[in-house]
Amino acid sequence: MISFKNDYSEGALPEIMEALVKTNLESTVGYGMDEYCASASEKIKKRINRPDAQVHFLVGGTQTNQTCISAFLRSFEAVIGVKTAHINVHETGAIEATGHKVIAVEGKEGKVTPQDIRAAVEYHSDEHMVKPKMVYISDSTEIGTIYYKKELEDISACCKEMGLYLYLDGARFGSALTAEGNDLTIEDVAALTDAFYIGGTKNGALFGEAVVLLNPELQKEFRYSIKQHGGMLAKGRLLGIQFDRLFTDDLFFKAAIHANKMAMKLKQGLKECGIEFMEDSVTNQQFPIFTNDEIEILNRSFLFEYNDRIDENRYAIRFCTSWATKEEDVEKLIEAVKSMPKR
Amino acid sequence: MISFKNDYSEGALPEIMEALVKTNLESTVGYGMDEYCASASEKIKKRINRPDAQVHFLVGGTQTNQTCISAFLRSFEAVIGVKTAHINVHETGAIEATGHKVIAVEGKEGKVTPQDIRAAVEYHSDEHMVKPKMVYISDSTEIGTIYYKKELEDISACCKEMGLYLYLDGARFGSALTAEGNDLTIEDVAALTDAFYIGGTKNGALFGEAVVLLNPELQKEFRYSIKQHGGMLAKGRLLGIQFDRLFTDDLFFKAAIHANKMAMKLKQGLKECGIEFMEDSVTNQQFPIFTNDEIEILNRSFLFEYNDRIDENRYAIRFCTSWATKEEDVEKLIEAVKSMPKR
Amino acid sequence: MISFKNDYSEGALPEIMEALVKTNLESTVGYGMDEYCASASEKIKKRINRPDAQVHFLVGGTQTNQTCISAFLRSFEAVIGVKTAHINVHETGAIEATGHKVIAVEGKEGKVTPQDIRAAVEYHSDEHMVKPKMVYISDSTEIGTIYYKKELEDISACCKEMGLYLYLDGARFGSALTAEGNDLTIEDVAALTDAFYIGGTKNGALFGEAVVLLNPELQKEFRYSIKQHGGMLAKGRLLGIQFDRLFTDDLFFKAAIHANKMAMKLKQGLKECGIEFMEDSVTNQQFPIFTNDEIEILNRSFLFEYNDRIDENRYAIRFCTSWATKEEDVEKLIEAVKSMPKR
Amino acid sequence: MISFKNDYSEGALPEIMEALVKTNLESTVGYGMDEYCASASEKIKKRINRPDAQVHFLVGGTQTNQTCISAFLRSFEAVIGVKTAHINVHETGAIEATGHKVIAVEGKEGKVTPQDIRAAVEYHSDEHMVKPKMVYISDSTEIGTIYYKKELEDISACCKEMGLYLYLDGARFGSALTAEGNDLTIEDVAALTDAFYIGGTKNGALFGEAVVLLNPELQKEFRYSIKQHGGMLAKGRLLGIQFDRLFTDDLFFKAAIHANKMAMKLKQGLKECGIEFMEDSVTNQQFPIFTNDEIEILNRSFLFEYNDRIDENRYAIRFCTSWATKEEDVEKLIEAVKSMPKR
Repeated sequence: MISFKNDYSEGALPEIMEALVKTNLESTVGYGMDEYCASASEKIKKRINRPDAQVHFLVGGTQTNQTCISAFLRSFEAVIGVKTAHINVHETGAIEATGHKVIAVEGKEGKVTPQDIRAAVEYHSDEHMVKPKMVYISDSTEIGTIYYKKELEDISACCKEMGLYLYLDGARFGSALTAEGNDLTIEDVAALTDAFYIGGTKNGALFGEAVVLLNPELQKEFRYSIKQHGGMLAKGRLLGIQFDRLFTDDLFFKAAIHANKMAMKLKQGLKECGIEFMEDSVTNQQFPIFTNDEIEILNRSFLFEYNDRIDENRYAIRFCTSWATKEEDVEKLIEAVKSMPKR
Repeated sequence: MISFKNDYSEGALPEIMEALVKTNLESTVGYGMDEYCASASEKIKKRINRPDAQVHFLVGGTQTNQTCISAFLRSFEAVIGVKTAHINVHETGAIEATGHKVIAVEGKEGKVTPQDIRAAVEYHSDEHMVKPKMVYISDSTEIGTIYYKKELEDISACCKEMGLYLYLDGARFGSALTAEGNDLTIEDVAALTDAFYIGGTKNGALFGEAVVLLNPELQKEFRYSIKQHGGMLAKGRLLGIQFDRLFTDDLFFKAAIHANKMAMKLKQGLKECGIEFMEDSVTNQQFPIFTNDEIEILNRSFLFEYNDRIDENRYAIRFCTSWATKEEDVEKLIEAVKSMPKR
Repeated sequence: MISFKNDYSEGALPEIMEALVKTNLESTVGYGMDEYCASASEKIKKRINRPDAQVHFLVGGTQTNQTCISAFLRSFEAVIGVKTAHINVHETGAIEATGHKVIAVEGKEGKVTPQDIRAAVEYHSDEHMVKPKMVYISDSTEIGTIYYKKELEDISACCKEMGLYLYLDGARFGSALTAEGNDLTIEDVAALTDAFYIGGTKNGALFGEAVVLLNPELQKEFRYSIKQHGGMLAKGRLLGIQFDRLFTDDLFFKAAIHANKMAMKLKQGLKECGIEFMEDSVTNQQFPIFTNDEIEILNRSFLFEYNDRIDENRYAIRFCTSWATKEEDVEKLIEAVKSMPKR
Repeated sequence: MISFKNDYSEGALPEIMEALVKTNLESTVGYGMDEYCASASEKIKKRINRPDAQVHFLVGGTQTNQTCISAFLRSFEAVIGVKTAHINVHETGAIEATGHKVIAVEGKEGKVTPQDIRAAVEYHSDEHMVKPKMVYISDSTEIGTIYYKKELEDISACCKEMGLYLYLDGARFGSALTAEGNDLTIEDVAALTDAFYIGGTKNGALFGEAVVLLNPELQKEFRYSIKQHGGMLAKGRLLGIQFDRLFTDDLFFKAAIHANKMAMKLKQGLKECGIEFMEDSVTNQQFPIFTNDEIEILNRSFLFEYNDRIDENRYAIRFCTSWATKEEDVEKLIEAVKSMPKR
């Protein structure tokens, strides 16, 4: 079976494993106060051109979102996100578990718009309703789309005007930043948001997300929140070592470039077979639409996820590529689709 | 500098690293549904002689305690623990963050007693107070002591009588189970508690704790709780691979035996120098008492933690050994103490 | 100014005030353990024909919903409600504050449908998402509509099939049960739901809601939840006295009948003036649509709430009647509308 | 049976009932935005000489403590209180339910001391522990003692120095402020604390507590917190009317003076019979110690609460007086004690 199921199906980039093995018997202090974390933090701050930022390392995405949102908001404040947002759908209520409502807005192509934000703020007009205080976006989005520079600038301006924090979930940030047509840099994001995280888990790390806190209001005592939500890794240096390596020689970006290249090849190949897509994704998640019969055939040789039922006979499925995807596997998939019975 | 600061100062046992490297490029499903987790789970269930148990793998101790306690209790129910309990002191209110009170009892030698439990239940007599529903113990305790079989049997019987769940935090379970004088087996613990966890982080894993759920009431839908508290590792197989290895060829116990051996050597050596100890610990944490001047000398060559101020001139410090402690380092420490100026 | 702003603009029914004054200097035990609460509870259980029910008295609606939902659900379980549901919009995140997600469904005429429920349960398919465990409905709804017997039967059957609790918010239950065309009895509701509350605040009490717990699973230790959420009134007998009186000589229903009668007169009068309504409400909330200019005129003499902007020039406003509404005030309102400039 | 069980066994002061009856059919806006609340707020601000204060009205004490503490603290911050504190013992974990730990300190005579505060802050030294941010005291205390001016000044100074909010629970504030020997004025309290509440429920109101927010940091958006915790009374004017009356002609203080007078008579009478007391209470709660046999006799004619077992044969019970206590009932109690068999 060839897996396009996820971008976290394998371990880590060989360079990461090597770094972990090499440092394995070194003795360091715990909880992220070690030199590797310090070094990784410096490299990230330099790369994003924000020496005033704070960088913290956590293990996973849900944990990171929960910790950040809970740390940033007062008890009655809420976070605005698009309907399909990870925090709204796929975190088993982790945000609500810390007491906060997720205000789900319709969005467009999986993205929050300034109109959505404005409408949500206007709707929540008094103390009988939660108070919107934060906007959550992810880049790339749950459906593989990306935010363009102008879009992020508009959202950022809107948030500033309305007194909202802007937070970017970068679980698949690498793929977004290196996507075809992307015009947003990591420096832009650091200039336009109050906080964001750089996803390691889905881009070649064993695990790990680097939270970048830009707004000084949000920096204060953040480590208390990490600990309270069970996110303070005893051997914190494991995170430091990984991010130090990812931000050396652009490894982070190179890994994402490969994932995107594989995705584009897959997309192109399937398009040539006449396959339609649910969304025009430019990143490492592709959502082609197949008939039930075709899916049965694919199931024999490939692993993938079911995304959305289109109609009784068709389903949008997800093929996910990563740093670990082999070109020959993409070719096998295209071949399999090519040789399917004509519709 | 030689570190006796912690049992999580290094990476992982070489056998663990090897297993991670070897499996690195294999593709598996995520979130702990892979074969490595299944295999590790089977080995643990066999080892504890409880085929009916459920085993789940989480990343760290605070996360594990938070997830378990929150999953087991209704909102107004509380957990009883000794004053020094990790959940009461060192988890930044992670338990309270999920809405539950920790009822701190005095205990004896760092251990909860049936009398403590009984008194707490009797004191909380009606609905104007929280309802005690669970007892939290850790073995070894925060001060290095261990539960003897008779003690655990008595606590277990008391919990049953009072309708309380019994949960054992095994962050340093390996060291406890292999300590000098210990008469408790892991099978005993599996027979006497409702749930416990086997600590990997402090006993040779890169990270990871294996939660064992024995009481069927507590098994239901536990994965929802893991996810909600941000503890569901995307590359869950990393935990499976580690515990599979730890429970092959008794690696888990061997690692602990080494840590204890180093601790006993250190204890013996310091005792011979006339050093007193805060507690008579039989495990890998030792709490010798030094004067301020002596501590200044130790500080030049060794890393350790400050535990309790004894008086103006003396402090109980902590030396912690582990699977990674080198015998020569223990000898250097003993040497250093020997050569201190006479008091 | 004549107020149609709310059904809680005045104090209490004269009969209620009389009962409170009469018993004022009696000495009773606190926290709802007094004889008045016992008597009220008995009367309610008899009226709903459920001697096995538990009845508890709380002060207000948000508190009641928060207490019930938090008591009924495990931490990762969620409650399904219609988009406009009070718990989803108008409780400042009180449900999320106890850790639970509100799953908002589209509904129809302000009501949850079995299709909504089924779709929500199917969508939340695994432990990466919250687990729907409860359905929240209110009768009458936020927009004045009511549940007919067949509708409630269908919802109830659907909940049973899907393993969900069914809870009915009866903040305006009196008005619903006595509305024109209503075919649902309070006995039906007691037979078809797992829990519901009978709203006193909006139907002639000074304050107070009577929670009726039918499902024995939900009855256990409910008083702990009341206390934990700050809802256990010291002078609990104030609630008992009021509900005892409301459920003597059908006072509860008579008060609602008056409110509905006034609402129907108002609706009829406005319809005759050619005014359109946002919803065809049969209860004490009416949502006529006026132009901005007309609203300006109304504003000079009447108090009311703004509900929904229809378009740039029109607004649906809310007129609310109650036990205290005077017929002459309704007539004055109709007169005022009649004498408005023709559109 | 004559009840000394509580200070909330009866309804309300006749003046209060009269005010409620008189205003019953007036129509006002809801949720505390009415003129009665405004007037009561003005009177209180004037009385405490703090025109910059914010005054909010809530229904009960647990609700008030929960709302305030939850509003004032960030998620990882904790509140320091004495072991016997209402929030620590008698609120069914209402504080923990909002995510905050109560740090229980030993105290002296039921009162927190600056030494307690200092020690708690020093102990909680880093982000692995909760962060103390607030001190909770109550006046009078749970055991009837009061804070003297010098004591409150010292606590206040200590809190300022340590960056902690100081909050006073005034459930029995009237009795404290009018107690024999008290040298603290309500103006002092308003000058020395960040927030406090004036208890109506236990001093002659039907129900109600007036929260006074002095520190501007704590004033912001407080109504959101009230609503979120289910404390925003629909007919908020009921609270305004009561506090408006309580703060007219010193009714609040007069009611407390009567309660104290009755308590002092009772205390004096019992002392003359040779009865010992658990604490030297100067307020409306008295804790005499009786033998089991004597208690059996008392039980035939009087209602009271059991406080603390002294030894196998003796119990400290509580007699509570109030605005409603009749002098003749106190005399009957003294008589009963006098005529008990000699020990």
